[in-house]
Amino acid sequence: MHILITGAAGMIGRKLTERLGEDGALTGKPIDKLTLLDVVCPPKPEKFTGKVETIAADLAASGEAAKAIAGRPDVVFHLAGVVSGEAELDFDKGYRVNLDGTRALLEAIRAVGTGYRPRLVYTSSIAVFGAPFPPTIPDDFHLTPLTSYGTQKAMGEAMLADYSRRGFCDGVGIRLPTIVVRPGKPNKAASGFFSGIIREPLAGQEAVLPVAETVVHTHASPRAAVGFLVHAATLPRDALAPRVNLSMPGVCCTVAEQIASLRRIAGDRVAARIRRAEDPLVARIVAGWPQRIEARRARELGFKAENSFDEIVRIHIEEDRGGTFVN
Amino acid sequence: MHILITGAAGMIGRKLTERLGEDGALTGKPIDKLTLLDVVCPPKPEKFTGKVETIAADLAASGEAAKAIAGRPDVVFHLAGVVSGEAELDFDKGYRVNLDGTRALLEAIRAVGTGYRPRLVYTSSIAVFGAPFPPTIPDDFHLTPLTSYGTQKAMGEAMLADYSRRGFCDGVGIRLPTIVVRPGKPNKAASGFFSGIIREPLAGQEAVLPVAETVVHTHASPRAAVGFLVHAATLPRDALAPRVNLSMPGVCCTVAEQIASLRRIAGDRVAARIRRAEDPLVARIVAGWPQRIEARRARELGFKAENSFDEIVRIHIEEDRGGTFVN
Repeated sequence: MHILITGAAGMIGRKLTERLGEDGALTGKPIDKLTLLDVVCPPKPEKFTGKVETIAADLAASGEAAKAIAGRPDVVFHLAGVVSGEAELDFDKGYRVNLDGTRALLEAIRAVGTGYRPRLVYTSSIAVFGAPFPPTIPDDFHLTPLTSYGTQKAMGEAMLADYSRRGFCDGVGIRLPTIVVRPGKPNKAASGFFSGIIREPLAGQEAVLPVAETVVHTHASPRAAVGFLVHAATLPRDALAPRVNLSMPGVCCTVAEQIASLRRIAGDRVAARIRRAEDPLVARIVAGWPQRIEARRARELGFKAENSFDEIVRIHIEEDRGGTFVN
Repeated sequence: MHILITGAAGMIGRKLTERLGEDGALTGKPIDKLTLLDVVCPPKPEKFTGKVETIAADLAASGEAAKAIAGRPDVVFHLAGVVSGEAELDFDKGYRVNLDGTRALLEAIRAVGTGYRPRLVYTSSIAVFGAPFPPTIPDDFHLTPLTSYGTQKAMGEAMLADYSRRGFCDGVGIRLPTIVVRPGKPNKAASGFFSGIIREPLAGQEAVLPVAETVVHTHASPRAAVGFLVHAATLPRDALAPRVNLSMPGVCCTVAEQIASLRRIAGDRVAARIRRAEDPLVARIVAGWPQRIEARRARELGFKAENSFDEIVRIHIEEDRGGTFVN
């Protein structure tokens, strides 16, 4: 089993690489080789004993996608992409990386031709949805993204379905909910506070909450996201055909419920490090985001998210903080 | 008022050109100039007294889109495209013409820059939908096309919405139902029989019906399609924002009801020229097509289709057969 991961240097890419390295197998077959691609050279997994190839390349650049799949990987995890904020600020870059990069990968796979039909797991996002929404977003709700990022992801989903239908690849597109708690430093993403209000207080630092505590959103941990990816890789061929793109489950809760989880697990002193300072711009952006994702199909297909936000907080403490926090 | 029509040599393109030529005005403003583009040189409208420029070009070819909008048209009708059957047979050509051609046009408009924001009317299709369907397809039903053509149209819709949201153009995407009765010779499109079973009998020729008479579908006349295009051009700016793509109304009926209309209008002898010869391949393709389109939003916005299939038959006799038929 040979696996290619694009975007392998990103947060999810690194956690997926580690997970696959530890498992040493996928769908019961031993992993012989991992090819790790990103625009910067991705780190090698610590516990993996098979062959590892690292590639620093931009998939959208001429010939790079063909090189990336030259070894004919059996499974491709396509995580590479420019995030929401950057795709909105740099219109050309967003389309080049998110749309052209994905198309180049699909075209490189198609160009291999007869007999080559790898499982291609594509990470989409609930950013493909745009307000106004019904109380719960069903699996058959239309995609009306309100960002260029969401548009590019929706276009990638459409191509993935078409290339799969035509038999060029065996695609599974998974729409990730907001991933919390993201480890590391705060970033400038409008969604950053969802992680920040948990991560910073646990690290003994103040966090700013820029929206009302009544805001409802759907979350999953980085561990759950990696679980979605691995599960997507192991689904039987044509399990999803022809609707190969599906919304992932998550924990739907209010910001108040997020904070209550933090308080239950880490105490009042930690929870008190959250400072309310409503930011009308962030509040407006967040108002356009999906709230409650039904994800019935994904649940029926065995995709598993956490059952409570408490679990999400505990996973962060365990996985990214060595089991401790600053009281 | 300067108007650009891409795909101006096609059936709808020619009828739209004639209509605009006759009207001489759009949204109350006189039309000074028509720019007509297609891969073959489009015919000039007979009754138009303004300036007409004809261009034979492929929008996807480098620099052609920029040339097409060099005169900064106030309204662009983007009809150019490869049809369903051809996009399915020639994968590369479908993506090049339908996706890259549309993107090139959008990019050429964006490249003009500040202050230029033309109304761009984009013709999509109900082929963006794919089975299974609810009894009636609502406006917020997801796009899961089962053809490359439908995929490319869905991607065009996504770009149109994003470029409009960003202020680069003022887009209105209209999803046309099946247009009947198409004048001219039978073509090899799987949907061709919907027109054929009316057109051929009225011309004294036998027509083959390859599906069961219970098949339900949504139809509009070429005249209604031109009406949709003109109405889309006259909607107030931001009337649709941010959901600029919408399903057009039509007459939902069974094939049996189509035939009953033909019999009512032209008599038993004409209707008897339809020969039933079920074609399992066509039947299978048609089974994946949308049946009943709700189009509530379009109706509320004033888009008008025919009220009965009788009207559709009469329009064909009047517009394409000089008011007569072969008894």
